[in-house]
Amino acid sequence: MNDLVMELDSHSGRHLYEQIYDHIKREIREGKLLYDEKLPSTRLLAEYLQVSRSTVDLAYEQLLSEGYIESRPYRGFFVCKIEGLYDFQAQRAETAERETVVVPKYRYDFSPNGVELNSFPFRTWKKITKETLTGDRKEMFALGHPQGDMELRTTICRYLHASRGVNCSPEQIVIGAGNDYLLLLLEKILGRHRSVALENPTYKRAYRIFESFAYDVRTVPMDENGMCVDALYECGADLAYVMPSHQFPTGIVMPIGRRMELLKWASQKEQRYLIEDDYDSEFRYRGKPIPSLQASDREEKVIYIGTFSKAIAPAIRISYMVLPQRLLECYRCQCMFFSSTVSRIDQSILNVFIRDGAFERHLNKMRKIYKSRHDALLGACRTYFPGMEVSGENAGLHLLLHYKGNRTEKELLEAAAGNGIKVYGMSETYIGRLPENWQPTLILGYAGLHETEIEDGVRILAGCIKHQP
Amino acid sequence: MNDLVMELDSHSGRHLYEQIYDHIKREIREGKLLYDEKLPSTRLLAEYLQVSRSTVDLAYEQLLSEGYIESRPYRGFFVCKIEGLYDFQAQRAETAERETVVVPKYRYDFSPNGVELNSFPFRTWKKITKETLTGDRKEMFALGHPQGDMELRTTICRYLHASRGVNCSPEQIVIGAGNDYLLLLLEKILGRHRSVALENPTYKRAYRIFESFAYDVRTVPMDENGMCVDALYECGADLAYVMPSHQFPTGIVMPIGRRMELLKWASQKEQRYLIEDDYDSEFRYRGKPIPSLQASDREEKVIYIGTFSKAIAPAIRISYMVLPQRLLECYRCQCMFFSSTVSRIDQSILNVFIRDGAFERHLNKMRKIYKSRHDALLGACRTYFPGMEVSGENAGLHLLLHYKGNRTEKELLEAAAGNGIKVYGMSETYIGRLPENWQPTLILGYAGLHETEIEDGVRILAGCIKHQP
Repeated sequence: MNDLVMELDSHSGRHLYEQIYDHIKREIREGKLLYDEKLPSTRLLAEYLQVSRSTVDLAYEQLLSEGYIESRPYRGFFVCKIEGLYDFQAQRAETAERETVVVPKYRYDFSPNGVELNSFPFRTWKKITKETLTGDRKEMFALGHPQGDMELRTTICRYLHASRGVNCSPEQIVIGAGNDYLLLLLEKILGRHRSVALENPTYKRAYRIFESFAYDVRTVPMDENGMCVDALYECGADLAYVMPSHQFPTGIVMPIGRRMELLKWASQKEQRYLIEDDYDSEFRYRGKPIPSLQASDREEKVIYIGTFSKAIAPAIRISYMVLPQRLLECYRCQCMFFSSTVSRIDQSILNVFIRDGAFERHLNKMRKIYKSRHDALLGACRTYFPGMEVSGENAGLHLLLHYKGNRTEKELLEAAAGNGIKVYGMSETYIGRLPENWQPTLILGYAGLHETEIEDGVRILAGCIKHQP
Repeated sequence: MNDLVMELDSHSGRHLYEQIYDHIKREIREGKLLYDEKLPSTRLLAEYLQVSRSTVDLAYEQLLSEGYIESRPYRGFFVCKIEGLYDFQAQRAETAERETVVVPKYRYDFSPNGVELNSFPFRTWKKITKETLTGDRKEMFALGHPQGDMELRTTICRYLHASRGVNCSPEQIVIGAGNDYLLLLLEKILGRHRSVALENPTYKRAYRIFESFAYDVRTVPMDENGMCVDALYECGADLAYVMPSHQFPTGIVMPIGRRMELLKWASQKEQRYLIEDDYDSEFRYRGKPIPSLQASDREEKVIYIGTFSKAIAPAIRISYMVLPQRLLECYRCQCMFFSSTVSRIDQSILNVFIRDGAFERHLNKMRKIYKSRHDALLGACRTYFPGMEVSGENAGLHLLLHYKGNRTEKELLEAAAGNGIKVYGMSETYIGRLPENWQPTLILGYAGLHETEIEDGVRILAGCIKHQP
C-alpha cells in the first residue's frame, strides 16, 4: 500500500474520490503500480485514508470504466496490462506554432470581394430574432430537413421566380452553408470521375474546389459573349461551370444566343449539366435584371446556385441550389443522410426577412449605395485614366481597367501597394497560360469603399502608375 | 413595324420601357421577329409609340444586354441569331412531385437521436443575440476565418481541455456546420484513395458518409473492449473511425489498454490516423467524464471531432474538429479556400454562451434531466423485462435491451409499432452479416421522452412483445 500514500485535501474544491482516482491513475501511468499488482480492497483503503467507503468505491469505479484496473471475481482489484503506456509523456510540449495571419495594411483595398459592412440590417435582424426565439416553437430546435426548412425553400422559390425568372418548385431547392459547401454536396450528387469545364479566366475559388474533387478540370477560353462553345465541345467535359449574368472577372453578360448554344450542348448527352453560379446578380444598375440561364432551360439541364452572403453579409452563411429533377432523385438516393448545415433559427430569421419584404428593401438600399460607388469609380477612372478602357460596367461589384503602357501587371500592383493601394491583377484569374497579346488589367472592386475613398484611391493609383520609372 | 404594334399601359405600374422590352422579346422568342430583321430606330419607334426616346433606348439596351438584338454600326438594330430558341416552351409544366415525407405517428418514439427540446436556453440565447447584434461590431459581418473565429476556437480549446482532457491549441481547431460537413472536409484534407475501418456495429450515418467518399470502407468486429485490434491490423485500413467514450450503439467505453493499442497501431505508419467521434460524451451519470482518446495521444495521431448539436440543440449546426499538426499543414495547403460554414453571428453567440458559463449551467441542467430519464428507463426495463439484460448504462442517451425469446427483431419492432411504440433494432446498425448467435436487441433512446412516457412506453412494449403470438 506504499504506493497509495496520498495526501488528500478536503479543502481543495476537488472531490476526495477524484483525488484518489487521480493519484492511482498517476501511479499506474508512471509505472509505480505495475501490471497484475493487487490494489487494496475498498474497505481497507477507506480505513487507511480515513474516508468513507463509497468515496473509494467511486474512485475504483472510475478507474474500472477507463480500463486502468480490473475486478477479478472473489479476488479483488488488479492493475490492467496496458501496452505502451509507461513511456507516456505526461505533458505534451505545446509545439503548435501560433497562427500568424499577416494582414498588410492598405489605405484603400479595391477588393472584388469587398462589401459594405455598415449596412447590415441589424435592427431588423435583431427584431426578427427576438420574435423567433420564443419558447412556443420547440420543433424549431429539432434537427431539420436535410434540404432546409420547407417554409424558407418556398420563400426562396418565390423570390427566385420573381427576381431571376427561375422555374422550380421548393422540392428542388437545397439550402446549404455557403456555395463551397453546396459544391461539395454536388460532387456527391453528380458522382465521381466527372469532367468539368470552367471559363478562363474564372473565379479561382471555384477552380480550386473542383480541383479538390475527383474530377478532371478543363478550361475553356472566352470570347466577348462568354464561354466558347466550340472549345467546350472539344474539351470533352460533361459539366460546365458558368456565370452567365455577370461573369467573374470579365463582367460579360452572356447573351441569349450563347445561352441557347450552351443549353443545346447540355441537352445532347444525358450526363451533361450546366452549373450556373449567379453570384452577384442582385446588383445591376441599368435596366432590368438579366434573367438567369435556368429561366431558359426547358430540359432540366441547369443546376442553379445562388447566395445570400453577398447581398446580406458574408458572415451569413446561407446559399441555395436548384436541382433538376433527375439530380434531385440522385440527391435523395445518395445524399439525404447529409444533415443540413444551416441553423434552423437562422433559416427561420431569413425566411421572415425575405417574406416580409425586408430583404427587398435592403437590396434597394444596397443597390443605391453600390450604384453611387460604381459611378464614382467609373468617373474617377475616366478622369485619371483618360486613355484607358474600362469594362464590366452596369452590373456587379467590380470593374476592369485595361492598362495601356509598358509596365507589367506585377509592376503595377507593386507600385500601387507601395503607395498603400491594394488592387488586383486579372492575370491571377487565369488558369494556366495567359492569352497572347495579354495586356495588364486591374480588377477594381468598389463595394467596400466610400465614394471619397474611391476617388482618392484612383487618384493615388494614377499618380503612382504614371510616375514610377 | 407591324410586329411592334403594342399596347402600352401607363397605369399598369410597370415601366413603359419594360413593356416595350417585354413585347419585343416575346416577338423574338415566338419567332414573329426573325433573325436579321431590322428593328426601327429608337427615334422612329418612340414617335410611333408616343413615348420619349430614352424610354425606347432603355428597352433596346436591355435587349442588347441579354443578346436578343445587336447593334450594327451605322445601320441600326437587328435581331440576333439564336439557335434552338423557337421551339422554346414559354411555360414549363410544373411536373415536380410534391415532397411527401410520411411521418408515421407513434405514441412514444424511443429514438436514440431524440433530444429534450423544451430545454433550449432560449432566454439566454436571445439575450446574447441582442448584445451581439449591435452596430459597433461591423467586422463581424465580414467573411470570417475559414477555421472559425479565433475567439470561439480559444473558448472551445479551453473547454475541451478542461472537460475532455484534449491537448490542442486553438490553431488546430476547425469549426464547421455539423459533423457531416467536417467529415466532407476531412476527405479533402486526408486525400483520395484512403481506406477507413469502422467498428461493427456502428453509427450508420458515418458509414454512409465514408461510403460516399472515394474510400475503401472496411468493418472491424468489436469485443467487450471495443474495436478488435488484430482485425484492424488485418483489414489493411489506414484510418479508423471510433467512438471510444461511448460507442454507438453498444455503449462500450473503450478501456485505456485498448486505447493504447489503437494508438500504437496508428503510430506504426505515417498515413495512419484515428478519427475519434466524441458525439455524446457530455452525458455521463456516474463518476467523472471518461477522458478522450486524444488526451492519450502523444504522436499526433488522433483527429478529434465533437459537436454542440447534441448538447445544445440539433438545430444549432456547430461542430469542431481538432487536427494533428501534420494534417493541419495539409488543411492549410489544400483546403483553406473552403469558406467557413458557420455564421459569425452564431459563432459569436456560442462563444459568449460557453465563455460566460451558460453552457456549463445548461449541461448540468440537461445531465439532471437525462439522468432522471435514464434511471426511469433502467427501472422500467428491470420491472417489465426482469429476465433480460440491459447494457450501455452509465452514459449517453440510449440503452440496449437484449431480448431473450424466440421472436425475430423484426417481429419485435412490428409488434411494438402496432401498439404505437417506436423502438429501434440493433441489427440495423450492423454493416453486412450479423454475428453468429445473434440475439434480437432493442435500442431504446430516452432523451426525447418524459419519465412517465418512458414508464408507460416500456409497459406497453412489454405487453405487446409478451402477448403477441
